[in-house]
Amino acid sequence: MCVFCQIIAGVIPSAKIYEDEQLLAFLDVGPLSPGHCLLVPKEHFTRFEQLPPDLVAALARRLSPLAQAIVKAVSAQGYNILNNNGRCAGQLVEHVHFHIIPRHPGDSLFTRWPTGKYPPGRMDELADKIKLLL
Amino acid sequence: MCVFCQIIAGVIPSAKIYEDEQLLAFLDVGPLSPGHCLLVPKEHFTRFEQLPPDLVAALARRLSPLAQAIVKAVSAQGYNILNNNGRCAGQLVEHVHFHIIPRHPGDSLFTRWPTGKYPPGRMDELADKIKLLL
Repeated sequence: MCVFCQIIAGVIPSAKIYEDEQLLAFLDVGPLSPGHCLLVPKEHFTRFEQLPPDLVAALARRLSPLAQAIVKAVSAQGYNILNNNGRCAGQLVEHVHFHIIPRHPGDSLFTRWPTGKYPPGRMDELADKIKLLL
Repeated sequence: MCVFCQIIAGVIPSAKIYEDEQLLAFLDVGPLSPGHCLLVPKEHFTRFEQLPPDLVAALARRLSPLAQAIVKAVSAQGYNILNNNGRCAGQLVEHVHFHIIPRHPGDSLFTRWPTGKYPPGRMDELADKIKLLL
């Protein structure tokens, strides 16, 4: 059983902040910032694209109320919603989860944003390729 | 008019990959990785918590198909879904947007993940405080 399934089952304790039939939200034990929360579906899915549409909707609906409560609780000025899919994307637990990370001025999280540039024509070419796959 | 409203209005050109009545998705001109896309509501809202529930649902529904098409187009192995709210959270354009960032092993994006630790009792105390605000 994965670590989040164990948390959901109550085998591993957690600081829960929200729970319903489909979802659980709890504080990350290794927070990037106090209040850093994880929202997970109770059913085990590895990646976001595997979630059935009703679960995506339920999860999405819950993000904003959670974020607002967290932001208030820690007097944050902003927050990130982050979902990593795949080990190469920073997903450590293979049970789909959304991070809600409260942010404060000067907290120096995610400050590295190494933007690239497309060679001429490449961006439109890639957009066309993606459109064909949609 | 903000830069995304200008893109939506067609005043600023963009490499669009998806469009419907409520939403627009286009390639980020400064990609963290080729295929890096931005999904935005056409109506101007600054932050995620300001979106009406139907728009949250529409937006959430669109993330997975977009991510899958992008991942295929650039042969990525993973992706991040990221939404920044507030300048301190890295939000540069004040028009709510979701990043979909295709990821490849060793691409060294978002490698800094400086986890903290709660002092004894603090995590449960904070969870209780958040629950009261929900």
